[in-house]
Amino acid sequence: MKIAVLPGDGIGTEIVAEAVNVLNALDLKFEMEHALVGGAAFDAHGHPLPESTLKLAMASDAVLFGAVGDWKYDKLDRPLRPEQAILGLRKHMGLFANFRPAICYEQLVGASSLKPELISGLDILIIRELTGDIYFGQPRGRRTAVDGHFPGTEEAFDTMRYSKPEIERIAHVAFQAARKRNKKVTSVDKANVLETFQFWKDVVTEVHTQYPDVELQHMYVDNAAMQLVKAPKAFDVVVTGNMFGDILSDEASMLTGSIGMLPSASLNAKGQGLYEPSHGSAPDIAGKGVANPLATILSAAMMLRFSLNQPDAADRIEAAVQKVLAQGLRTPDIYSEGTTKVGTAEMGAAVVKAL
Amino acid sequence: MKIAVLPGDGIGTEIVAEAVNVLNALDLKFEMEHALVGGAAFDAHGHPLPESTLKLAMASDAVLFGAVGDWKYDKLDRPLRPEQAILGLRKHMGLFANFRPAICYEQLVGASSLKPELISGLDILIIRELTGDIYFGQPRGRRTAVDGHFPGTEEAFDTMRYSKPEIERIAHVAFQAARKRNKKVTSVDKANVLETFQFWKDVVTEVHTQYPDVELQHMYVDNAAMQLVKAPKAFDVVVTGNMFGDILSDEASMLTGSIGMLPSASLNAKGQGLYEPSHGSAPDIAGKGVANPLATILSAAMMLRFSLNQPDAADRIEAAVQKVLAQGLRTPDIYSEGTTKVGTAEMGAAVVKAL
Ligand SMILES: CC(C)[C@H](C(=O)O)[C@@H](O)C(=O)O
Ligand SMILES: CC(C)[C@H](C(=O)O)[C@@H](O)C(=O)O
Repeated sequence: MKIAVLPGDGIGTEIVAEAVNVLNALDLKFEMEHALVGGAAFDAHGHPLPESTLKLAMASDAVLFGAVGDWKYDKLDRPLRPEQAILGLRKHMGLFANFRPAICYEQLVGASSLKPELISGLDILIIRELTGDIYFGQPRGRRTAVDGHFPGTEEAFDTMRYSKPEIERIAHVAFQAARKRNKKVTSVDKANVLETFQFWKDVVTEVHTQYPDVELQHMYVDNAAMQLVKAPKAFDVVVTGNMFGDILSDEASMLTGSIGMLPSASLNAKGQGLYEPSHGSAPDIAGKGVANPLATILSAAMMLRFSLNQPDAADRIEAAVQKVLAQGLRTPDIYSEGTTKVGTAEMGAAVVKAL
Repeated sequence: MKIAVLPGDGIGTEIVAEAVNVLNALDLKFEMEHALVGGAAFDAHGHPLPESTLKLAMASDAVLFGAVGDWKYDKLDRPLRPEQAILGLRKHMGLFANFRPAICYEQLVGASSLKPELISGLDILIIRELTGDIYFGQPRGRRTAVDGHFPGTEEAFDTMRYSKPEIERIAHVAFQAARKRNKKVTSVDKANVLETFQFWKDVVTEVHTQYPDVELQHMYVDNAAMQLVKAPKAFDVVVTGNMFGDILSDEASMLTGSIGMLPSASLNAKGQGLYEPSHGSAPDIAGKGVANPLATILSAAMMLRFSLNQPDAADRIEAAVQKVLAQGLRTPDIYSEGTTKVGTAEMGAAVVKAL
């Protein structure tokens, strides 16, 4: 079992180190190889996703990823910015299925912006298509407008697109995930305005005929953004495109109040996956030893379950995380009165001990 | 002062009737002419935006709009569906600037999903560009993919685009609005992925040099969706494109808990405007006399201020709405224990009385 470990920038190195400690504490044999990615790779090799890092990732069963990005790279040309590494990995590894659970941990209900009764017990799964849509559609660029409101002026443009097989495969992923949960899929579109998402809706409806035991609901993206605030627990599995999924999965994770706890998985057709926390590189707290490593540790658990076929080890890690929360240990982002504030390394060590 | 009154479908007729009563109770002279729009127009004339309705709207100083849509039109071809009327009005009237205030009324703090301390006193203004972006960009349609992940298969596509003057004019609107408020603009983009929104960011930055007294902040759309949940009061004016604005303005209005209270205005370069509540046609409660008319009444107030140059009358209406809230009158959507539940007509009459 080969794992590419790509800590990245900001708090990435600190939180990934704790996840690696947790993996090492299991009685399993992994080959783990570290490589630079993001701004750190740019600094060392002049590119956020060096050939060697990509090669390592492609040759591994799974990638354990920290986070990338720092304000100091904001002035670089887009192709050299840290986040291009993550887009490049998704594209080259074909990681089309992004799993973003939004779970509210009972001990952390108070950390949510939402009233406890709306959020307590929340457990939804957002499945975001990750290699298509306007993220990668060609053509894109700048040109002189030939029509529109101001012909003859400069304009910029992008292409949104989805092909039928792209929609089919992510729909299958969603229906199959729903079968293992509460058997309800909400497909989010903007069919009232976009050709792409009318097609999305049509294809998802067609795939649904193969899953008569799963309920399918269609919802416009603007309404979904509202319903997530109003009644998040009404959702089970949400499936949507790359752009809408970017927005809604972040909205949903913030609703839980514990984004520092939320893992994510991005899978390809071969079962290879990239595992990373839902949060970012948080350069403002980098190096201070206060970042919450639990989302990364839980991402490692997802990795064991989805790409390394070690469901028992995954269960053990998740139980250990529950245990440290029950012990009252909290990093600053989830701290509340009456609990014990700990740093990144202490939190990681506590999980190892709880294993 | 000529007003086109387009009640539309669902609760549209009921709520617009109350707003018309309120306008009639002012000692001002309006010429008001009613016309059908949406599903109602389709039923009568076979088109959601008949030529006669569009002509009337174009020839008026302002349009007072209810809402359109009903499930029974879902099976129609897209060009005949009710919401095409609103897209057609925006396009033909050139209503490029959409004002969507998200205000939390002190008496209704409890109706929000959010904890009172996060939402109490909220007063943000979302300015959404309304005639550009992927809503109207050409080309769009279905075709056989020639590249991408599955060449040779069927795909659907749309074009996102913004020209420089389109971005400039909405940026000016935002900076000028901020000058009358707390002098802060958050421009929401996805410059890390989209050419269109890197251009958006560049042009907004350029326009900002003309407003040194206003603070400009750039934020990615996924982060904006999170920050609205985490700390909505940190925003003042938010400006963004048509698609992101659709999602974020709905998210923001739902955060307030009183979407039944929120008006909106859509203006063109000549000061003509379309005024409508932020909520939809709610076919489930149509005809029951329980819909909240206050968002529409407040939209009429915006109309008086923005298109009819009657700021005093606008102030009077807004004060009257405050008064009925203070009297404890509540339609079912905003009802809470200890207040008085009233229907649509009673609420409208109370506002008239309070004038
Ligand atoms: C960094 C950025 C390109 C990326 C995205 O938009 O997909 C991020 O927001 C995410 O969701 O992983
Ligand atoms: C009905 C629909 C086309 C419309 C939009 O997407 O603009 C609506 O959601 C709105 O925000 O006014």
